[in-house]
Amino acid sequence: MPVGTQGTVKAVSPRELHELHAQIILGNTYHLYVRPGLDVIRKLGGLHKFMGWDGPILTDSGGFQVFSLAKLRKITPEGVHFQNHLDGAPCFIGPETSMEIQHTLGSDIVMAFDECPPHPCTHEEAAKSLELTLGWERRSLDWWAGRNEGGERPLLFGIVQGSSYPDLREESARSLVAMGWDGYAVGGVSVGEPEPEMMAAVEHAVPHLPADRPRYAMGLGTPPQMVEMVARGIDMFDCVLPTRVARNGTAFTAAGSLNLKNACFTLDEGPIEEGCGCYACANFARAYVRHLVKAEEILGLRLITLHNLHFYLGLMAKARAALEAGTFAAFRSEFVGGYKPHREST
Amino acid sequence: MPVGTQGTVKAVSPRELHELHAQIILGNTYHLYVRPGLDVIRKLGGLHKFMGWDGPILTDSGGFQVFSLAKLRKITPEGVHFQNHLDGAPCFIGPETSMEIQHTLGSDIVMAFDECPPHPCTHEEAAKSLELTLGWERRSLDWWAGRNEGGERPLLFGIVQGSSYPDLREESARSLVAMGWDGYAVGGVSVGEPEPEMMAAVEHAVPHLPADRPRYAMGLGTPPQMVEMVARGIDMFDCVLPTRVARNGTAFTAAGSLNLKNACFTLDEGPIEEGCGCYACANFARAYVRHLVKAEEILGLRLITLHNLHFYLGLMAKARAALEAGTFAAFRSEFVGGYKPHREST
Repeated sequence: MPVGTQGTVKAVSPRELHELHAQIILGNTYHLYVRPGLDVIRKLGGLHKFMGWDGPILTDSGGFQVFSLAKLRKITPEGVHFQNHLDGAPCFIGPETSMEIQHTLGSDIVMAFDECPPHPCTHEEAAKSLELTLGWERRSLDWWAGRNEGGERPLLFGIVQGSSYPDLREESARSLVAMGWDGYAVGGVSVGEPEPEMMAAVEHAVPHLPADRPRYAMGLGTPPQMVEMVARGIDMFDCVLPTRVARNGTAFTAAGSLNLKNACFTLDEGPIEEGCGCYACANFARAYVRHLVKAEEILGLRLITLHNLHFYLGLMAKARAALEAGTFAAFRSEFVGGYKPHREST
Repeated sequence: MPVGTQGTVKAVSPRELHELHAQIILGNTYHLYVRPGLDVIRKLGGLHKFMGWDGPILTDSGGFQVFSLAKLRKITPEGVHFQNHLDGAPCFIGPETSMEIQHTLGSDIVMAFDECPPHPCTHEEAAKSLELTLGWERRSLDWWAGRNEGGERPLLFGIVQGSSYPDLREESARSLVAMGWDGYAVGGVSVGEPEPEMMAAVEHAVPHLPADRPRYAMGLGTPPQMVEMVARGIDMFDCVLPTRVARNGTAFTAAGSLNLKNACFTLDEGPIEEGCGCYACANFARAYVRHLVKAEEILGLRLITLHNLHFYLGLMAKARAALEAGTFAAFRSEFVGGYKPHREST
């Protein structure tokens, strides 16, 4: 899922998202709640119509952003009181508020409201946080009970927490499955922990999640991390990397990431990635993209953003095809083995 | 002509330019000479191929930018020594260099190398500058004599100077016509002078320019200014306004310009301009565009840029149609009369 934090996938139009074959995008509840606010989105007919995107939208619960962006937080069993990061105005989000916001946005996949504990934290802290989160998730689910009787309700996803503690990850997963969600996310990963710990968090959760429901690893990751997560049973991802690093001149390729600001690309007539069919690679040389990035031209980051999203979505399409063809093991070892984190040159 | 200063019309892709029915764009010789430099553009096969634009390109001579951007200029009869605005490296551009650069860029319409005197300046200063300019223009034209015998050479345009002095404007125009150019530009306008003086500069030049050659007013202007210039016999324009003001949240409409940051658009469900068929107006509400601009999202300035270019190109298409239909006088008074410089609200 390309990430559309503030009602737009950064630098990309809905038409371009369709051309990239994006199946679904993510919207950030916290950001949209703070700006433009629900009055605007309600008046404009919901988030889909507001942003001109007619495909599915998954919205997060706002929890993670409250904990990472807002100031002066006060956590109570009811929810979280905070000052927003824009103008410091006092705000409150609890499980019921989060559901109401996501309902107003018109989300297709609603995430439970959870607390994301900091990394590292003690077992005691993680256990206490999990207890709070499970209560909030229960209330998130209950909010929807009996609603939308006549119509379709969105899909509801619970979020496995438990920090780096296997027993808590298992407890979290089992408790959520007992509640019965449409899908299950693994949260509290990619929060600063070493990669083996991130993989372990997923490994401790996945075996306890039903195989016939989507599993979603939140906020991940690098291309090899995603393939490794697929190998561990994850079906869905959202990631800001393809759009974020593009704005800094970094492009993803199957051989690794390239910093297109590097002088070695000054006269390079080749496309960002040989054999790539995206608009950027079909029409422009690395030398041109480098020039645009160096000259701080918006088209430069646009072209790299398009390429990076094409690359990420294409990587997942290849993973799906390999799974269906029964060749995933070979695909995984070839891709992960051939990927250099910082390729930096040709 | 949308302006593509650094090898891109700011924030717009070549595909979008085609969809906007842009017939020709402008490239800036000075900027491209300084960055990425001719080695890059030569290696990449010329400016068209470099930037992926297969339509015509008009290049300016670099003169205006040398006088407005570069530092420590020293003007000699030979040309201009200066330090470029990026790294202060010593550079030189004279008429022959300018022609060579424009030739290397692969320009379709080459502008003569001229001096643009500051505003205001005395008659003596303007006369002296004009003498220098006429010599440089002669040498610009001579550079092409005998070149490209076998193939097509680009069109060559002379530039009328003479500041705000009618006698000098006339002398400049007559001298250029005697040299025999493919087209004629009026330069040294929109350099800080009051609008009546700008109109007068054009009025003093046009009667002395052949009716069967294109006339081009450089660096203009607001929508009513362009219509007024058409009324005075001008055929071509280049202008950074549609792209530049878009990046500040300002959109052009037939009723005047709108600052989409204004609070009055917060809940506005209408398009930027009612009845407009551009991508932005066909798909997004003012409330959404305002949100994007306030949130500093790139898609916001992209959408306004597309609308503004559509508006400018559409305005010229309407002027052409009115001229052909013999209804230009009515079109002019209706448009200019109905346009408010700062409409600011609905």
